[in-house]
Amino acid sequence: MNKKEGLGMVRTKFFTFAEGTNKLVLSSGQRIGPITLAYETYGSLDKDKSNAILIAHALSGDAHAAGFQEGDKKPGWWDVMIGPHKAFDTTKYFVICSNVLGGCKGTTGPSSINPKTNKPYALEFPLITVSDMVNAQKYLIDHLGIKKLLCAAGGSMGGMQALQWVASYPECVRSVIPIATAWKHSPQQIAFDEVGRQAVMADPAWKKGNYYGDTKPERGLAVARMIGHITYMSDQSMEEKFSRKLKDKNYSFSFTADFEVEGYLRYRGDSFVKRFDANSYLYITKAMDYFDLSGGKLILQGKDIDTRFLMIAFQSDWLYPAYQSREIVHFLKTRFANVTSCEIKSSYGHDAFLLENDEQAHLIKHFLKSTHNQTKDEKR
Amino acid sequence: MNKKEGLGMVRTKFFTFAEGTNKLVLSSGQRIGPITLAYETYGSLDKDKSNAILIAHALSGDAHAAGFQEGDKKPGWWDVMIGPHKAFDTTKYFVICSNVLGGCKGTTGPSSINPKTNKPYALEFPLITVSDMVNAQKYLIDHLGIKKLLCAAGGSMGGMQALQWVASYPECVRSVIPIATAWKHSPQQIAFDEVGRQAVMADPAWKKGNYYGDTKPERGLAVARMIGHITYMSDQSMEEKFSRKLKDKNYSFSFTADFEVEGYLRYRGDSFVKRFDANSYLYITKAMDYFDLSGGKLILQGKDIDTRFLMIAFQSDWLYPAYQSREIVHFLKTRFANVTSCEIKSSYGHDAFLLENDEQAHLIKHFLKSTHNQTKDEKR
Repeated sequence: MNKKEGLGMVRTKFFTFAEGTNKLVLSSGQRIGPITLAYETYGSLDKDKSNAILIAHALSGDAHAAGFQEGDKKPGWWDVMIGPHKAFDTTKYFVICSNVLGGCKGTTGPSSINPKTNKPYALEFPLITVSDMVNAQKYLIDHLGIKKLLCAAGGSMGGMQALQWVASYPECVRSVIPIATAWKHSPQQIAFDEVGRQAVMADPAWKKGNYYGDTKPERGLAVARMIGHITYMSDQSMEEKFSRKLKDKNYSFSFTADFEVEGYLRYRGDSFVKRFDANSYLYITKAMDYFDLSGGKLILQGKDIDTRFLMIAFQSDWLYPAYQSREIVHFLKTRFANVTSCEIKSSYGHDAFLLENDEQAHLIKHFLKSTHNQTKDEKR
Repeated sequence: MNKKEGLGMVRTKFFTFAEGTNKLVLSSGQRIGPITLAYETYGSLDKDKSNAILIAHALSGDAHAAGFQEGDKKPGWWDVMIGPHKAFDTTKYFVICSNVLGGCKGTTGPSSINPKTNKPYALEFPLITVSDMVNAQKYLIDHLGIKKLLCAAGGSMGGMQALQWVASYPECVRSVIPIATAWKHSPQQIAFDEVGRQAVMADPAWKKGNYYGDTKPERGLAVARMIGHITYMSDQSMEEKFSRKLKDKNYSFSFTADFEVEGYLRYRGDSFVKRFDANSYLYITKAMDYFDLSGGKLILQGKDIDTRFLMIAFQSDWLYPAYQSREIVHFLKTRFANVTSCEIKSSYGHDAFLLENDEQAHLIKHFLKSTHNQTKDEKR
C-alpha cells in the first residue's frame, strides 16, 4: 500500500467530559464519570459545519479508522473506505471516529482507572448499552461544535450505533448508513456472544475480572476470538482461502494444527489477545445483546424525521443475515422514511463490509453526495 | 412416552478382541489392543442372517440407541426411529449399535486403562480415524456371524461411518443410509471442531490430558459443547424456541444469563460434562476432521459394487449443508451406483435427524423394505 495515496499520518486525540458531579447517566441508571473518548478526525470541517460524518466501529475496532500512526505497518481498520477521493471522501467531508464507551483503545472502559479506588474498574465498571455509547459520542459532537451530522455510518455494531443515533437524536443526524447489521440480536447472535463470554470467564486467569497487573485470561479470550472469526467468514470464503490444505504433507496424528485453517484460527486468537482487553470483550458483546430497536423503538409513532437511510447487507453474511436488514427497511417504509437499501453480492461473509468492495464504496459515495447536495439546497 | 410402545428394557453388552499379539493396526500405523466394544442389539437375527442393520452414532452418542435401561428417564438417543414398527422396525430387523472406538461409553478410548501402564491411556491413546472405528465394528459384525449387513445407517458422524463401510467393506454392506453428513469436513467444520478442542485444551484442568482421578476440564468442555449446540440448531429454530425471551422481567445489567438462550446453553454445557470425557471429545472430533472420502475414495475406479444408497439431508442444516450430500450423490451417479436422495424440509437444523420426523421415518422404512425384499428375491 502506498501511504501517499491515503491520509498519510494521523493522530488519536482525546476528549474528557462528565467530570465532577456531571456524571453520565447510563441506561442501567448507574452514573459514570469522568469519561475520556479517544477519537480521530480526517479532513476539514466546513464553515457551516454541515459536512461532518461520524464513523462507528464494530466489536474489536477503535478510533483509528484510517491513515497511519507512527510505527503502523497497516493503516486504520477502514482505510479502504476513508481518505481522499474514497467512499468517505476526506477532501469533501470531515470524518470523525471515536472508540466506544467500554472499549480499551483509549476510551474509558473496564481497564481504565476508577477514580474512586485508583485501581482499574474491572467489573466495578457499569454495564453499558449501545445507547450509552451514542450518548458519549453526542458529547464529542457537541464539543466539536457540530449541530447536525451529515451522516452516521458503520458496519456490524457500528451499524447499531448509526441506528441508535436515529432513535436517540433524530434531529442531529441528516442520514445514516447502517451496514451488515440488525436492530436486535437474534438468539443465535446472543448465543455466539454468550459462548465467547463463557470462554473468557472459564479461564481461571480471568479471576472475576480482577486480572489487571497479573496474568491475563489470554487462552479464554483467544477461544472467544476464534469463534468470532468463524462467524465473520462464510463457508465459501473459508473454502476458497483454506480448503483442506495441510500445514505439512501428511496428517500429524497428534493434536497439533494439521490444517491451515486451524493454524490461522490459532494465530488470529493469539494476536487478538495482545491488543484487546478481555473485560471490554464482555462489556461490548453484552451491549450488543441488549440492543433492541425493534417494535417501533427506532422511530417512535407520530415522530416525523427527515433522516435518509442507506441500508447495506451482504448476501453471504450469515452472522448478520440480509433478512435482518430487510426487517428494518420494511419498518422504515411503514414510517414513510426515505430509505435506499441494497444487498451486495459477496462471498466474504460478515467481513465483507471491512474489505475493499467497489459496490459498497460506489453506493456510499453517491448517497453522501446526494445527501450533501440536498442539505446545501435546503439551506439556500 | 409410554415404555410399552417401544422396546422396553434393553441392556448394553460387551465384546473384546485384538487381544494378545493380535492388536488392531490403525490408520496411523500404530497398534492397539485389547479393544472392548460396548454394543446393544434390538430384534432378532433371522436364520440366514440377512436382516442385520448397523446403526452408527454421532459425536456424543453411544451404544444405547433405543429402549430404556435401568433408571433411564429418557430412552436411547434414536428411540424415535428404532423399535417395533418404527423406521428401523425391530419386528423385522436385527438392529446393532456400538459405541465408537475412542469413545467413553464402554468402548476402549482415552479414558480406558492402558494395559501397559495400568493407568488411563489419556494422550497415550493413539489417534483414530473413522476408518479405524469401522474396522472395529467389522470385528463385532464378524463375531455376531453376519457376513453382509442389510444396512449401515447413521446421521452426522454416523453417516461418515456408513460411507466408510462402503469404502472399506463394500461386499459386506447391502445398503447404506448416510444422513446429514459429508464425505469430508469443510474448513468451516474443521474450524468449529478446532475451537472446541482449543476450549478444552485451554482449561488448565486438562493438564495435557492427564486429569483422570483429578478435577476434570469441565469448564473447557462445557464451552466446546455450547459451541456445538449453536451449530446443531438453526437460526430459525433458535428464534422459535427462544426468541429474545428473558429469564427475568428486565435486563440484569450484570453478566448473569439474561436471555433464555443463554441459560439453555449453560445448562446443556454443564450437563454434557457429567456424561462425556474431554479427551474422547478431542479424539472423536479429530477423527471427523481427518475423514475424507472425496476424490474417488468412496468407490474406487473400476470397482463394481451393489450397495444401495439412501442419502438424506435437511434444508435448514447449516453445519452439514445439503450441498455436501449432493456432492456425494453426484459422484455416486458417475459411478452408476443405485442412489436415492432426499432433502427434507425442516427448520430444526442439524438436530433434525435426531428428532421425530415422519418424512425421514417413511423414507427409511420403505427403502429398507425394498432392499430387504430385493435381497430375498436374489436368494430365491
